[in-house]
Amino acid sequence: MGTHTSGFVLNQTMLRVKDAQASVRFYSEVLGMNLLARFDFEAGRFSLFFMGYEDVASVPADPAERARWVFSRPALLELTHNWGTENDSAFHYHNGNIEPRGFGHIGVSVPDVEAACEAFTRLGVDFVKRPNDGAMKGIAFIRDPDGYWIEILSGAALARIVAT
Amino acid sequence: MGTHTSGFVLNQTMLRVKDAQASVRFYSEVLGMNLLARFDFEAGRFSLFFMGYEDVASVPADPAERARWVFSRPALLELTHNWGTENDSAFHYHNGNIEPRGFGHIGVSVPDVEAACEAFTRLGVDFVKRPNDGAMKGIAFIRDPDGYWIEILSGAALARIVAT
Repeated sequence: MGTHTSGFVLNQTMLRVKDAQASVRFYSEVLGMNLLARFDFEAGRFSLFFMGYEDVASVPADPAERARWVFSRPALLELTHNWGTENDSAFHYHNGNIEPRGFGHIGVSVPDVEAACEAFTRLGVDFVKRPNDGAMKGIAFIRDPDGYWIEILSGAALARIVAT
Repeated sequence: MGTHTSGFVLNQTMLRVKDAQASVRFYSEVLGMNLLARFDFEAGRFSLFFMGYEDVASVPADPAERARWVFSRPALLELTHNWGTENDSAFHYHNGNIEPRGFGHIGVSVPDVEAACEAFTRLGVDFVKRPNDGAMKGIAFIRDPDGYWIEILSGAALARIVAT
């Protein structure tokens, strides 16, 4: 394999979203991500929203510099919005956790799962699993506006689950 | 929203894989990721493989320390293998890019898309889109052993696409 992979970075995970405004609000307000860049493709009638935990003050103002920066960071979430889906009440995406299965979830590591989940409850977030449900105590799963699952975990909680 | 999100990290993207050995080999040999941790769940008959670009020398040897470390890093890929699927020739997961759609891809940022794709070609990798195919010149999509799409991109290529 040689060194052809030198400098590779896991930059992004792309999820299609029905309503970009709802999704950007959720990932910002519930999970504390920042909207780092937005790109609109008029010809293809879609927009991309890049969310992540990078400081917005780090985002270069120049469009080409911004693109070079966004597309070399690790751990970004790319939300793809195909224009108009938000106006179709029957439209929905598939979250991968019922048949046909595949993609499972993204996972956010937090300092304190209980405290995070108390905040999510105050914000009206939809839970798949609360920290004390089921066999895997101390971790939670919540749903984003499209129904995608987000694991809420901590190093301490997982150390108890996998190393005891 | 206050500060309930302080310290949050986008830790993982979870994909179910049919054949763990094939997937770990692909993400290691083709994409240069390291297997940072493996957890086997006898009761649930599944294993988790955490892949990423972190240096394996950084992985703590102590199991609890290792779990705390793995579950606080950004940008890991979690491969979930439900035991036995690799022996069912009809079994396959859904990649989200045909109906029902949802998850799209993960994306790896590389220093030079052309050079990376030449290496992938030598390694016999399956391409969805080569860098010169279609409208978005300079980026590629490849398939992993389950058919999940991986975008191969660079900051320079995306700067040309989105900022010109």
